[in-house]
Amino acid sequence: MNASDHEPDTAESSSGANPQRVEVVEVAARDGLQSDPTILAPGEKVELITRAVQAGLRRIEAVSFVNPKRVPQMAGAEEVMSALPTDAGASYIGLVLNERGFDRALRAGVDEINVVVVATDTFAERNQGADTDGLIAAWASISDRARDAGIATSVTVSASFGCPYEGEVPVGRVAEVVARVCEHAPDEVALADSIGAAVPTDVHQRIEAVREVLGGARLRCHFHNTRNTGLANAAAAVDAGVRVLDASLGGIGGCPFAPNATGNIPTEDLVYMLERMGFDTGVDLDALLAVIPWMEDVLRHPTPGLLARAGNFPGTR
Amino acid sequence: MNASDHEPDTAESSSGANPQRVEVVEVAARDGLQSDPTILAPGEKVELITRAVQAGLRRIEAVSFVNPKRVPQMAGAEEVMSALPTDAGASYIGLVLNERGFDRALRAGVDEINVVVVATDTFAERNQGADTDGLIAAWASISDRARDAGIATSVTVSASFGCPYEGEVPVGRVAEVVARVCEHAPDEVALADSIGAAVPTDVHQRIEAVREVLGGARLRCHFHNTRNTGLANAAAAVDAGVRVLDASLGGIGGCPFAPNATGNIPTEDLVYMLERMGFDTGVDLDALLAVIPWMEDVLRHPTPGLLARAGNFPGTR
Repeated sequence: MNASDHEPDTAESSSGANPQRVEVVEVAARDGLQSDPTILAPGEKVELITRAVQAGLRRIEAVSFVNPKRVPQMAGAEEVMSALPTDAGASYIGLVLNERGFDRALRAGVDEINVVVVATDTFAERNQGADTDGLIAAWASISDRARDAGIATSVTVSASFGCPYEGEVPVGRVAEVVARVCEHAPDEVALADSIGAAVPTDVHQRIEAVREVLGGARLRCHFHNTRNTGLANAAAAVDAGVRVLDASLGGIGGCPFAPNATGNIPTEDLVYMLERMGFDTGVDLDALLAVIPWMEDVLRHPTPGLLARAGNFPGTR
Repeated sequence: MNASDHEPDTAESSSGANPQRVEVVEVAARDGLQSDPTILAPGEKVELITRAVQAGLRRIEAVSFVNPKRVPQMAGAEEVMSALPTDAGASYIGLVLNERGFDRALRAGVDEINVVVVATDTFAERNQGADTDGLIAAWASISDRARDAGIATSVTVSASFGCPYEGEVPVGRVAEVVARVCEHAPDEVALADSIGAAVPTDVHQRIEAVREVLGGARLRCHFHNTRNTGLANAAAAVDAGVRVLDASLGGIGGCPFAPNATGNIPTEDLVYMLERMGFDTGVDLDALLAVIPWMEDVLRHPTPGLLARAGNFPGTR
């Protein structure tokens, strides 16, 4: 069916914007690099983000305010933030797990914070040392402070499509977690397929289920291509009216123990698909493709994105 | 002969059949191997096909009756055909480009023949030495003989979503070529994205456009994952009612000069997606996944499929 047949869930109603616009949130510098075997220096991260902004990406998950001793890939968040281009109107997102992280994010001057709430207790506890309730409580306390500080907020509900420990995650559980997250009025909620197990019917089901409980929050989706369904899920999400999608340049963000394993959906592949579907991403695909060889050089390994190898549609400059 | 068991392209419109069945046509032994840098011996091809049949695949593109001097990967078609398992009810397809090829296919005892008609003249001439008209004429002469011999026929309309030489291929051109192909009453027409450039909106548009001119032919789709949109296109095709999809074990079938480049959509990844979407493929996914390490060993290179690396949905046996 045609994209224009579908009503975007929030885009036009919130801003009167062109309904054909899909916003791609670039997450390579955070979600991508956090799982990469190569640790980039802050200056290299700044260059990665600057190149993404120059190619037209306008929302960037830039840094994470975690303990650099625990996650060395994310060291230097303040240094990165202080050196990012400010003239293009880009919005920089910092991941925040607790109030200490929020303090750092505030001082570093992020435009938005992102908080993660894991939909299953087992994954939540193993990954973040608190169950889902505990993570929602952390979000609640951060949300009050962010509102006071005038900082935009998004909450990523991870394991929304499957859990590495619990397996199936019922749709009702996801809707319940989203509803409780939305009691604290985030600007945006991202449904995340953290383990790359979703298929398009899951996407439609879960979007439909959470729509009722979003309150005023925008819906965003975050897919991994672990089982090759990432772009199919992205297409399902835009078909269902979602107009904000996460992606990672080169598709980095896979398991650190399998250097060429697929991670996030590759930004360049997603932009190719969306633009050829008639959506406007605001991204210059050739500029984006030009980032990949540089990135593979800095990372010292190939990236799993396919468009950079295959090239744009034949005859397209 | 399985193909005749299946209803036309829209399963919903059929009365008796299970609407949730999707038939996966396994093409690794032909389309996959034809582009692979490794040439398999006939016995290895027989083992590949036998393993596919044992995993539940029931339509197999098994051989090509081209000149083995021109396409050495396809040598030994008769030897392969004579050694295939006949007790599982599988249907074996042979690719035929001309009447000489048809003679060989007939003698070798294929269950079905597949003929390729390229939708653009430039690609047709460069690839097969005849323009689209010439290929349709070849199909016409073969179709009469196949009908007389009682052999099922399918025509693959390649470059239906883009041409490496001409770029965009208008929907009207594809519909016109399909209409002319259908004047000679094939049992099935496959729309092929030979260069892996399609996106889901293309799939919907072209399926809608050709449906009117199919006559009694079933519709099938053939996607490549060259630009990472292959499974998204497969999902779009089933969404549009197509119930026959080509796929290649391991996703082989890419460019021979880039050993790890993505080719056809990987059968195991497609089966994972379809089964989790609630469709029945009749395939044992674990048996299918078990073929991949053997295949990579025989091919002496990794295959681009992702499920074999990531594993089935967590907790699934």
